[in-house]
Amino acid sequence: MKILVIHGPNLNLLGVREPEVYGKMTLADINAALGSLGQQLGCTLEYFQSNSEGAIVDAIQSSLNSINGILINPAAYTHTSVAIRDALAAVALPVVEVHLSNIHKREEFRAKSHVAPVALGQISGFGPESYLLGLRALATHLGSKS
Amino acid sequence: MKILVIHGPNLNLLGVREPEVYGKMTLADINAALGSLGQQLGCTLEYFQSNSEGAIVDAIQSSLNSINGILINPAAYTHTSVAIRDALAAVALPVVEVHLSNIHKREEFRAKSHVAPVALGQISGFGPESYLLGLRALATHLGSKS
Amino acid sequence: MKILVIHGPNLNLLGVREPEVYGKMTLADINAALGSLGQQLGCTLEYFQSNSEGAIVDAIQSSLNSINGILINPAAYTHTSVAIRDALAAVALPVVEVHLSNIHKREEFRAKSHVAPVALGQISGFGPESYLLGLRALATHLGSKS
Amino acid sequence: MKILVIHGPNLNLLGVREPEVYGKMTLADINAALGSLGQQLGCTLEYFQSNSEGAIVDAIQSSLNSINGILINPAAYTHTSVAIRDALAAVALPVVEVHLSNIHKREEFRAKSHVAPVALGQISGFGPESYLLGLRALATHLGSKS
Amino acid sequence: MKILVIHGPNLNLLGVREPEVYGKMTLADINAALGSLGQQLGCTLEYFQSNSEGAIVDAIQSSLNSINGILINPAAYTHTSVAIRDALAAVALPVVEVHLSNIHKREEFRAKSHVAPVALGQISGFGPESYLLGLRALATHLGSKS
Amino acid sequence: MKILVIHGPNLNLLGVREPEVYGKMTLADINAALGSLGQQLGCTLEYFQSNSEGAIVDAIQSSLNSINGILINPAAYTHTSVAIRDALAAVALPVVEVHLSNIHKREEFRAKSHVAPVALGQISGFGPESYLLGLRALATHLGSKS
Amino acid sequence: MKILVIHGPNLNLLGVREPEVYGKMTLADINAALGSLGQQLGCTLEYFQSNSEGAIVDAIQSSLNSINGILINPAAYTHTSVAIRDALAAVALPVVEVHLSNIHKREEFRAKSHVAPVALGQISGFGPESYLLGLRALATHLGSKS
Amino acid sequence: MKILVIHGPNLNLLGVREPEVYGKMTLADINAALGSLGQQLGCTLEYFQSNSEGAIVDAIQSSLNSINGILINPAAYTHTSVAIRDALAAVALPVVEVHLSNIHKREEFRAKSHVAPVALGQISGFGPESYLLGLRALATHLGSKS
Amino acid sequence: MKILVIHGPNLNLLGVREPEVYGKMTLADINAALGSLGQQLGCTLEYFQSNSEGAIVDAIQSSLNSINGILINPAAYTHTSVAIRDALAAVALPVVEVHLSNIHKREEFRAKSHVAPVALGQISGFGPESYLLGLRALATHLGSKS
Amino acid sequence: MKILVIHGPNLNLLGVREPEVYGKMTLADINAALGSLGQQLGCTLEYFQSNSEGAIVDAIQSSLNSINGILINPAAYTHTSVAIRDALAAVALPVVEVHLSNIHKREEFRAKSHVAPVALGQISGFGPESYLLGLRALATHLGSKS
Amino acid sequence: MKILVIHGPNLNLLGVREPEVYGKMTLADINAALGSLGQQLGCTLEYFQSNSEGAIVDAIQSSLNSINGILINPAAYTHTSVAIRDALAAVALPVVEVHLSNIHKREEFRAKSHVAPVALGQISGFGPESYLLGLRALATHLGSKS
Amino acid sequence: MKILVIHGPNLNLLGVREPEVYGKMTLADINAALGSLGQQLGCTLEYFQSNSEGAIVDAIQSSLNSINGILINPAAYTHTSVAIRDALAAVALPVVEVHLSNIHKREEFRAKSHVAPVALGQISGFGPESYLLGLRALATHLGSKS
Repeated sequence: MKILVIHGPNLNLLGVREPEVYGKMTLADINAALGSLGQQLGCTLEYFQSNSEGAIVDAIQSSLNSINGILINPAAYTHTSVAIRDALAAVALPVVEVHLSNIHKREEFRAKSHVAPVALGQISGFGPESYLLGLRALATHLGSKS
Repeated sequence: MKILVIHGPNLNLLGVREPEVYGKMTLADINAALGSLGQQLGCTLEYFQSNSEGAIVDAIQSSLNSINGILINPAAYTHTSVAIRDALAAVALPVVEVHLSNIHKREEFRAKSHVAPVALGQISGFGPESYLLGLRALATHLGSKS
Repeated sequence: MKILVIHGPNLNLLGVREPEVYGKMTLADINAALGSLGQQLGCTLEYFQSNSEGAIVDAIQSSLNSINGILINPAAYTHTSVAIRDALAAVALPVVEVHLSNIHKREEFRAKSHVAPVALGQISGFGPESYLLGLRALATHLGSKS
Repeated sequence: MKILVIHGPNLNLLGVREPEVYGKMTLADINAALGSLGQQLGCTLEYFQSNSEGAIVDAIQSSLNSINGILINPAAYTHTSVAIRDALAAVALPVVEVHLSNIHKREEFRAKSHVAPVALGQISGFGPESYLLGLRALATHLGSKS
Repeated sequence: MKILVIHGPNLNLLGVREPEVYGKMTLADINAALGSLGQQLGCTLEYFQSNSEGAIVDAIQSSLNSINGILINPAAYTHTSVAIRDALAAVALPVVEVHLSNIHKREEFRAKSHVAPVALGQISGFGPESYLLGLRALATHLGSKS
Repeated sequence: MKILVIHGPNLNLLGVREPEVYGKMTLADINAALGSLGQQLGCTLEYFQSNSEGAIVDAIQSSLNSINGILINPAAYTHTSVAIRDALAAVALPVVEVHLSNIHKREEFRAKSHVAPVALGQISGFGPESYLLGLRALATHLGSKS
Repeated sequence: MKILVIHGPNLNLLGVREPEVYGKMTLADINAALGSLGQQLGCTLEYFQSNSEGAIVDAIQSSLNSINGILINPAAYTHTSVAIRDALAAVALPVVEVHLSNIHKREEFRAKSHVAPVALGQISGFGPESYLLGLRALATHLGSKS
Repeated sequence: MKILVIHGPNLNLLGVREPEVYGKMTLADINAALGSLGQQLGCTLEYFQSNSEGAIVDAIQSSLNSINGILINPAAYTHTSVAIRDALAAVALPVVEVHLSNIHKREEFRAKSHVAPVALGQISGFGPESYLLGLRALATHLGSKS
Repeated sequence: MKILVIHGPNLNLLGVREPEVYGKMTLADINAALGSLGQQLGCTLEYFQSNSEGAIVDAIQSSLNSINGILINPAAYTHTSVAIRDALAAVALPVVEVHLSNIHKREEFRAKSHVAPVALGQISGFGPESYLLGLRALATHLGSKS
Repeated sequence: MKILVIHGPNLNLLGVREPEVYGKMTLADINAALGSLGQQLGCTLEYFQSNSEGAIVDAIQSSLNSINGILINPAAYTHTSVAIRDALAAVALPVVEVHLSNIHKREEFRAKSHVAPVALGQISGFGPESYLLGLRALATHLGSKS
Repeated sequence: MKILVIHGPNLNLLGVREPEVYGKMTLADINAALGSLGQQLGCTLEYFQSNSEGAIVDAIQSSLNSINGILINPAAYTHTSVAIRDALAAVALPVVEVHLSNIHKREEFRAKSHVAPVALGQISGFGPESYLLGLRALATHLGSKS
Repeated sequence: MKILVIHGPNLNLLGVREPEVYGKMTLADINAALGSLGQQLGCTLEYFQSNSEGAIVDAIQSSLNSINGILINPAAYTHTSVAIRDALAAVALPVVEVHLSNIHKREEFRAKSHVAPVALGQISGFGPESYLLGLRALATHLGSKS
């Protein structure tokens, strides 16, 4: 099982950006933790981060034949990108959407997700743990289908 | 660590009610799966189900001194109960909210949760797996505080 | 044919409560009239009244194997209860929703029904006659299926 | 007792139009069934169908001195016609509003009725049976006044 | 003069629940203070607390013949319960609505009250003092009518 | 100067319809009063009444070359007819809109006029006097242009 | 018959302010024209202009015993002043509201009037002629009552 | 292939009405241009224009057995007529909706179409060319089905 | 303890204005009753009434160093004045907001208060008694701080 | 005449992406069909596709001196991009907006276009035929200006 | 060049009112700083402060012939005064609107300005510096016109 | 002091794009003017322009350790980009937002800024002068902190 992990805009600043909200782990730390868990769950992971909506659409499209599922934290694009939603719908792979913070506790516009209606499910509010839970959910889903 | 698992209205019908939406597992099956995972994670679990909003408020209140965290699927009361929200805020325990189905894919009124703003986070869309992920999230949170 | 008649909150005050709006018939009078008509239409009736949302959900669930159809006046819960709606959807029986007063002539929030989308149809505005018309509609529907 | 039955736009297509939604009965069949029931209830019926809002207003006005009550299915004009509402208010006769389909289960704009606030009550969702129930409701109301 | 004091959901936690918001007085303390003031104003008081919407409706109904006025803090049900509003309207007694905190300073959904339109008036924001002021208002109203 | 007076739906019932709201004058009485005033102001008047939106559009169009101004009480079509608005814009004649009752004092939907933005001005609330004031306004406007 | 004419804020600039919208007549010219017409209709007129909401409220109150009717162009305060509305309701005199421009053709916030619901009627869009029509309407109303 | 071309209200004024917006072509010119193009595409055309909503519903219904597709410019009824929408749905023929002006550039209420959800597609903004493009679209669609 | 009592616009008409709504007490009567109660509670009172928003702002500002609390009935300015709200916030004194009538039972715009978010609490619906309750609430608050 | 054809995000997946919605033609097929038709209409075409909003803005800008018109399917950016709208307004070329699917039949957010107000017109719902109709519309427009 | 500086309600409290939000500078300090900068830019300044909307309207009107531009901080009246907006439009002078705090960071109702649509531009968020920047903007604008 | 100047999409067309709205200065001219003023104020400036949201996010992030403040005209992304807002919040530098045109005078969607809540303040409406005022504001702010 091959899983593409997509990190949206500004997540490359993790550990720097508002640490009182997002904690001290860097993106590399999260990827490492995901890698360990992936190994344990029998998944190979690829990682992608970009601040550009178009580049994220490209990455999703390029997964078309080589990837079994997508774990995505769309960050700010969660609330504004129809293009990412359409790309996810187009490749028709299982998608799990994760968020570090509880999007229902912040500004109202952050509670609405363009991605959720094309995802299996959504996990928000557990910090980096959200990613690990999301990977488990995706692996379980893929496992139950094989 | 002692965790109270609360199942909201109509979840006692699981396995009977619209199985094409919610699957064939019964509530007893879910509780059993949670129990196994809890044992593995070092948690003792108590279970509660009710169709009555007031009874759920009572259950939350009774956890005040004996429980370390709450795992709740408020079901239909997610969208209508300020009383459950206030009870969760009052006991001031860590709360994880879970949903079997992806609440962002169903009728629009189901996307709004009164509970989410007083929870650590929300997990929706993975069927019974949502409960297991929620228990992991709660155990991780409680572990990191001890 | 066995039909469960459910009366929602405050309907036990019928004959007392704002008689200029709801008339002088008591709930017992209505049940008696329904019983006579039921006999004539070949239906056995059971009656249930509660002021509690949860108790109404319990009553609906308990009808699962023994009842052929439900005649319900959800009263105030019409406008606020997703739990009753979900319970009706779960038992998957034919439902007819009735109201004594014309809900489109009163405060605006009374025009919206959570129950209507899971009911066969809705009858409102004819006082106790609404119940009798609703029983006829339900009996006709059940008859046409048998 | 003389009752005017008014059928709104497109109801002349009954039996042709989306039969999977509205059934196979034609308007003539419905009028015949109403006639039989009317005879049984001691009512004489007149029938009117038009696709034109103005013609329906004219028909309502012409009932001013010769008719005791109106049974109306305003169809599409339910949601858009203030003129029909004003005409019904002007003639000040008892009105019963009926709909073949459950208007609360279709597009959201169909749930709002301009006619309901000037009607005795509303019956929707029982197919042609809605008309028969409506005639009973109207006859009962007229009987209780005489 | 006999007055029924009704405390809504979670108020039994007073003194425990968010004391920085609601202060340290318990419900027993408030009832005691009300009792003293009642004696001074010539009123006998009965007290009722429940977390269940249905039980509060029952309590209101049971006051029908024995009680002269109702002092109610509907708490979370203020914003969601049409059933409590209908029960208060049905018994047709003078009602005073009180709130510990200023409901206009908290989340927006707390500013809207289903109870206010059927109450004499509303007092909010003065902590336990809100109850005492409410009792005075009710006693003055009852006195001016006798 | 030739002026077309248009009366919208149900105005033919004037004197019959809710006389406590609209007074006892009939449409013929109003036309006569308008005729006298017109003579005094040097205007010839033509009168038109219909319950049909399409017929009113036709009447407006037919005024294209023979009429100098339009005095219209669109009645119920005030609030729903874009077609009458477009017809008035198309013939590009001066239009004065009048209403018998004060449309800002009745149901909220009656406060919105599709006709007002294409009219010189609007007069509402003075009963039949509204027509006379409107005729004066139109005559003054036409006079000031000649 | 004594009538108070009230001109709201900025109307003292008439003839100066945006003449392409409001014409070249000054407020003195309008008062003179009103005076002439008043004489003809048997009315004595008093005039008041202020840019201050409070001063207009004072003026309305001071009319309490000496005035038979009020002709008011509330200008900008039309859309924002509840105090002027309450003052007009308090003195309980017949009120006619006038506007120079058609308030339905300008910015949307100008279409809403706080004064209209406490006025006999509203006339807008005819320039200074609006005042003259308003005076006629008021005089007719006062005449029909005497 | 037989196609019914329907022109809504006020389109008979084309060439007269606001030519700076809609150009100088008359409806006869447009019908002639459509006729030529139809001949070239192998279609026979019938034309219908009415200012009456009901008459347009009648025309749509009458196409039931003799027509293969409908080209409609519903004009003002686009935004208000549920009856036309229901008629188009009832006859279940392919429909193409056209508009002379770009409905997304004008008043906001013109951007919403009741017809679009039951049409193949919508073309707006190209003046009379919109009709010709619409006929091509309809012919292509009908051709691809045969 | 020195308390400033502020009466908003039109309250000087009390006893005259709509007595069926506001009762027969004059403002002088209310001030006298407040004075007596103040004496009993150990407070000196100053009174201020104005119909002018600016004058009320001036009065609030002038209390800056000499006053311990403000009892205000902002009347019509409750719903429109941000300036009064800002003045109250600026002087940072304890404020109690009172209303004679139940603002939740009247027009919807009267339910919204600009003042409430900067007040300790709000009391509405008890007629002149609202002032007396408000004075008690303010005195209790000031006493508990000293 | 030189025309720039712009394809928005995810359109490079045509023929792969949800073929039951968008058909089996690839983007290359559409470009070829446009090329043939362009030749016939005397137009030279350039083609551009990107998943990046910024790259599409760059492409529009680069057309400034060399292109006569733009045919654009903004896809997902239709609903979210003000930058593309501003770029189209800046270059001030004739623009035709096309969509494969009928955007009025899908999710509500797809009915709103940021591009439409700066385009000549919009064509939606005819699959690849939408592009061909759009090219005809653009060519006709350019031809009528030369 | 002569410039009128207008300070709205409560600004006379600057240095006293919530200094943690608005700083310690008094209005006199700001006027002095403006005076110095004005001298440097070749402008003579006049200063006006009032808590009364009407007095501010008067001040704006009185500038009609003697002033070249207006620098205004409308404070609370920004959000509620149509009269000030109309006065500024009437005198037709260049206007610059300034705010001490960033009005987009405070309560939502403070983000909307009635003045902005009749101003050259708006500067908010820089404390007293907002005034100095506003004066520069106004002087530059006036200079570029001379 | 080092300041990063960011120009959003389409600003590279300045001098070309709608000069009647934005004037004839090019972006190079503005940068030159900013450079001169910067020198005078003791600031070094860096300039960045892009049409791509992602590239702007990258530029903001890259300023993290080398820049003291950001002057940004987000242009079209003002209204749509949460990613830029999040990037500005992440680097936690002082930000001044500027706009050439008065965004409160154009289409309504342009009045809303995602950037304003994370900026010191906003300056709009003064053409290129907005940039110079913004630079002054930023320099003053940075100066007052050192």
